[in-house]
Amino acid sequence: MNNKLLVVGTMAYDAISTPFGKVDKILGGAATYIGLCASRFSLDCGIVSVVGEDFENAHLELLKNQGIDLSGVEIVHGGATFFWSGEYLNNLNTRTTLETQLNVLENFNPKIPEHMKSPDIVMLGNLSPDVQLQALEQLKTKPKLVVLDTMNFWMEHFRPALDQVIAKVDVISINDEEARQLTGEYSLVKAADQIHQMGPKHVIIKKGEHGALLFHKNEIFCAPALPLEEVFDPTGAGDSFAGGFTGYLTQTGDISFNNMKLAVIYGSAMASFTVEKFGTENLVNYTPAIMAARLKAFKELTTFEIEIE
Amino acid sequence: MNNKLLVVGTMAYDAISTPFGKVDKILGGAATYIGLCASRFSLDCGIVSVVGEDFENAHLELLKNQGIDLSGVEIVHGGATFFWSGEYLNNLNTRTTLETQLNVLENFNPKIPEHMKSPDIVMLGNLSPDVQLQALEQLKTKPKLVVLDTMNFWMEHFRPALDQVIAKVDVISINDEEARQLTGEYSLVKAADQIHQMGPKHVIIKKGEHGALLFHKNEIFCAPALPLEEVFDPTGAGDSFAGGFTGYLTQTGDISFNNMKLAVIYGSAMASFTVEKFGTENLVNYTPAIMAARLKAFKELTTFEIEIE
Repeated sequence: MNNKLLVVGTMAYDAISTPFGKVDKILGGAATYIGLCASRFSLDCGIVSVVGEDFENAHLELLKNQGIDLSGVEIVHGGATFFWSGEYLNNLNTRTTLETQLNVLENFNPKIPEHMKSPDIVMLGNLSPDVQLQALEQLKTKPKLVVLDTMNFWMEHFRPALDQVIAKVDVISINDEEARQLTGEYSLVKAADQIHQMGPKHVIIKKGEHGALLFHKNEIFCAPALPLEEVFDPTGAGDSFAGGFTGYLTQTGDISFNNMKLAVIYGSAMASFTVEKFGTENLVNYTPAIMAARLKAFKELTTFEIEIE
Repeated sequence: MNNKLLVVGTMAYDAISTPFGKVDKILGGAATYIGLCASRFSLDCGIVSVVGEDFENAHLELLKNQGIDLSGVEIVHGGATFFWSGEYLNNLNTRTTLETQLNVLENFNPKIPEHMKSPDIVMLGNLSPDVQLQALEQLKTKPKLVVLDTMNFWMEHFRPALDQVIAKVDVISINDEEARQLTGEYSLVKAADQIHQMGPKHVIIKKGEHGALLFHKNEIFCAPALPLEEVFDPTGAGDSFAGGFTGYLTQTGDISFNNMKLAVIYGSAMASFTVEKFGTENLVNYTPAIMAARLKAFKELTTFEIEIE
């Protein structure tokens, strides 16, 4: 029997402009990326989210065809799907949000279907901490692992609720600037220490093209990012990381530090794949052979044999 | 018999201001850091440089006591030693040069002593490309490996001479911004490709707290930086890297890609040690046990066991 992964997060339409091109309305949202990546592993994956009447059937089918359970996705009749428009400047280093239409997300009360209330692993995609709390409260059993993704916006405007969520999760996944903002510590070692004290036993700090750090007690694992010739569109990189990370952990059911290191590598591999094309475009082309090649590249990139006297 | 390392570079006095403190006049210079680090390996190390009459005997003794051959260090009577004053701001991310007094460096014509003219490995520390060229022209035999360190200043104002040096070396060691400046390519993979075409078969791109990349043909090795609780003074990090890198390669005499990966780890370990105190202060405390502990930390930081199907 497969282990169960519950994903709570947004489903969206995005308009994206990068130095390489522009799209007006493509499939997006944290839960979408997480689901598309996680469902490549052997597991039962369900999404809890909300969309509007405009959400295309073809996009629902795309997710269903990957075996994702969408019975927790509410379709609001007469409502419009969450819409985000952003622009990447300066070699993709700066992201500017041009427009955010919350639409159906504004009054979203997540409803977890009965058969999804005892997942092995929960992935809380970047979303309002209030919604994340509401989702956690509906669980009937304590999951093996709860993973949280969040961002600076919630740190700035919803800190008390965010602190409540952080206290309840086992793993937090944020980027380096967010770790510094959350703690006021510049040193990532000190920032991770402080976040440990807020609750999470595991802290993942994502550094984009510089890879990711996983902190647990006094152990640190450093995963590089695959050096890519070109990043086409960074949208969804963090969500794809989360999808690969939780997908691999759910499949294996092993949350030891050693296995979590591998999950970080799987997550990084997924992210490296996503950013090579616009939005979720590349994820449709995923094959196990592509993953195997990337895992091999990670291994080659980092392996050295040293004799320590 | 030991292999020979020839170091060409500056010896200096530095005034440094960081958020953690301030020093008015401490020992500095690329060749100083390189020599202090490289001489921790089993090798014969000689420095070619220039100092003024003000250069303290105690500092010459410090270097000599580590077995460094200073017969190529010219002491200009009536001259003053190269002086650099800088300030680190914004969590050490920004370095501002407050003052540069070239002094004896201005008319420096390097003179390599006869017994140093057939080194196994040459390390050209960051210095005027004209001086670097002059040094290379005095060699009697082709070294096994020539390694170049340089910086943005020479790229901006001495590009033709710099291009000549780059064409003559086997390894170049620069930071990510400099790689981008040198090539006009933002992607470090593309930048390394282009630098390969300029001459160097090996390209090292240093990324500070994010580690370093080593490029050779189609192979890439990614070394992390040790996550430190606090960086005290980044001065000399790149030079210490160069010292550890060339010191290890000279000791082993093995310039294969696999061994060069280890050299990058040794270089990174040296750099992590230097930045924990002001200037060269920590290097005096170096012990083989410290190095062994850091190598172990690098190994733990990067090791993962993955089965690829």
